[in-house]
Amino acid sequence: MPKDRTISRLRGELHRLQEQMRKAEPTKPPQKLAVKPSQPTIYVITPTYTRFVQKAELTRLAQTFLHVPQLHWILVEDSPHKTPLVSGFLASSGLAYTHLHTPTPRDRKLQEGDPSWLKPRGAEQRNEGLRWLREDRRGQPGADTQLGVVYFADDDNTYSLKLFEEMRGTQRVSVWPVGLVGGMRYERPVVEAGKVVRFHTGWRPSRPFPLDMAGFAVSLKLVIANQDACFDGDAPMGFLESSFLQGLVTMDELEPKAENCTKVLVWHTRTEKPKMKREEALQKQGLGSDTAVEV
Amino acid sequence: MPKDRTISRLRGELHRLQEQMRKAEPTKPPQKLAVKPSQPTIYVITPTYTRFVQKAELTRLAQTFLHVPQLHWILVEDSPHKTPLVSGFLASSGLAYTHLHTPTPRDRKLQEGDPSWLKPRGAEQRNEGLRWLREDRRGQPGADTQLGVVYFADDDNTYSLKLFEEMRGTQRVSVWPVGLVGGMRYERPVVEAGKVVRFHTGWRPSRPFPLDMAGFAVSLKLVIANQDACFDGDAPMGFLESSFLQGLVTMDELEPKAENCTKVLVWHTRTEKPKMKREEALQKQGLGSDTAVEV
Repeated sequence: MPKDRTISRLRGELHRLQEQMRKAEPTKPPQKLAVKPSQPTIYVITPTYTRFVQKAELTRLAQTFLHVPQLHWILVEDSPHKTPLVSGFLASSGLAYTHLHTPTPRDRKLQEGDPSWLKPRGAEQRNEGLRWLREDRRGQPGADTQLGVVYFADDDNTYSLKLFEEMRGTQRVSVWPVGLVGGMRYERPVVEAGKVVRFHTGWRPSRPFPLDMAGFAVSLKLVIANQDACFDGDAPMGFLESSFLQGLVTMDELEPKAENCTKVLVWHTRTEKPKMKREEALQKQGLGSDTAVEV
Repeated sequence: MPKDRTISRLRGELHRLQEQMRKAEPTKPPQKLAVKPSQPTIYVITPTYTRFVQKAELTRLAQTFLHVPQLHWILVEDSPHKTPLVSGFLASSGLAYTHLHTPTPRDRKLQEGDPSWLKPRGAEQRNEGLRWLREDRRGQPGADTQLGVVYFADDDNTYSLKLFEEMRGTQRVSVWPVGLVGGMRYERPVVEAGKVVRFHTGWRPSRPFPLDMAGFAVSLKLVIANQDACFDGDAPMGFLESSFLQGLVTMDELEPKAENCTKVLVWHTRTEKPKMKREEALQKQGLGSDTAVEV
């Protein structure tokens, strides 16, 4: 317990340091506290869209990312413009981030009542994140420009902190199990003698890469070397990940992480859509919740 | 951006400090790093039960709590014994915690298929947390023994970090809005001239305290001064919070937080129960997921 308490206190200390920094004038950065980055940056690309639980989801996701050193969040809204909710949220998040937006074309969009598997969601937004990354690198010459890892993190999944340390050393494409996905306890690459030889999945194991979006990361170098690799929003159900990966890597080259793919470090959790029956009833009486209060 | 980058680096620095501490021998605590606690401890009581999403939920909740200085987590399993999953999870969480367990009596337990509102969940577990707190204090004399705040945090909600700073100054009972609860965008106490005068809720506003479990915190002092205050597991639907609060406080005494209850800092999110159809089908063929892999 004394160790735990010391950790608690340390966090308080960091908090105070951060408050100091926030209050410090921009012309006087606390140079003494700065530490040189010694590890590849993890670029996390997250598609997001407006819905009741959006701010809640982004809140807990940001809390995860705040624990990860050298992380840059690329949040891409499925919207014709940046929304005030997301802009305000990011500005106060304490994270290094890039805020992008691009609307999904109407014919590719899920309609109210469509089952979630009917059309892949977030393809255009992930591609927009990739476009930004490639363009941003072009303007920054130097040896370290291509040092980094790209991960696609949806805003409703659950990520352990260990996952980010596992993916940080990605050379080309690294892979690991994903929990609670595809009607299974987990899906995972099956590893023999250090190589991925097949996939444990409940559906069409013959797909080129039967992996969930949360189950792989790609080196920035590989993303830049393959300017055309992107997600095909018209890919058949379950082939979205393959549409991106098959231009980048072969099964033989995959780098198994998480103790040869035996540990579950990410879960495909899904958040229920909240019911709004009473809200609607009260609104009809003019007694609904104040729309000026952000939820 | 330079500030954001410095924050990223700082987090890395803290991480390294923590690694140093973990590796340090227990007989040589890094005294120089220790900072005296200057604020009340927040005791968070969380009921939890075995289910597919349990580890995922606890993972993101722990990541939230790791950001909060001086927090002590009292995790109470609805179980006749402590489970290895929760024990292992807590031991590696990095949090100060107490691990308890108590089973809900069979006649009070929800059955498969029951709607979640039929019976209140977690009453016995919250009472067990209160019992531990009162007993623990008894053995620790001193002026600071009763300095603290008690909060009941279910394992599926979403908590902003600001919420904990709001509740830390609780004198008796503090209150604030809860998002996405009760079929509403939010429920909240309505504040006039600094006092709670009524409640914005979609259902039975005449209840003694029409508040969600996530919408209030109680000072440790008040919990100790009222040894009999507890949750009534037989309370009618929606009256569980009232069964505890009505022995402690009057509406007039409630302390509104979150800018006079105008900001939503906690969301009553609910996680979908994952479907396991393919897992079951594969199990019948002897091809199910390895049960030795913890999910």
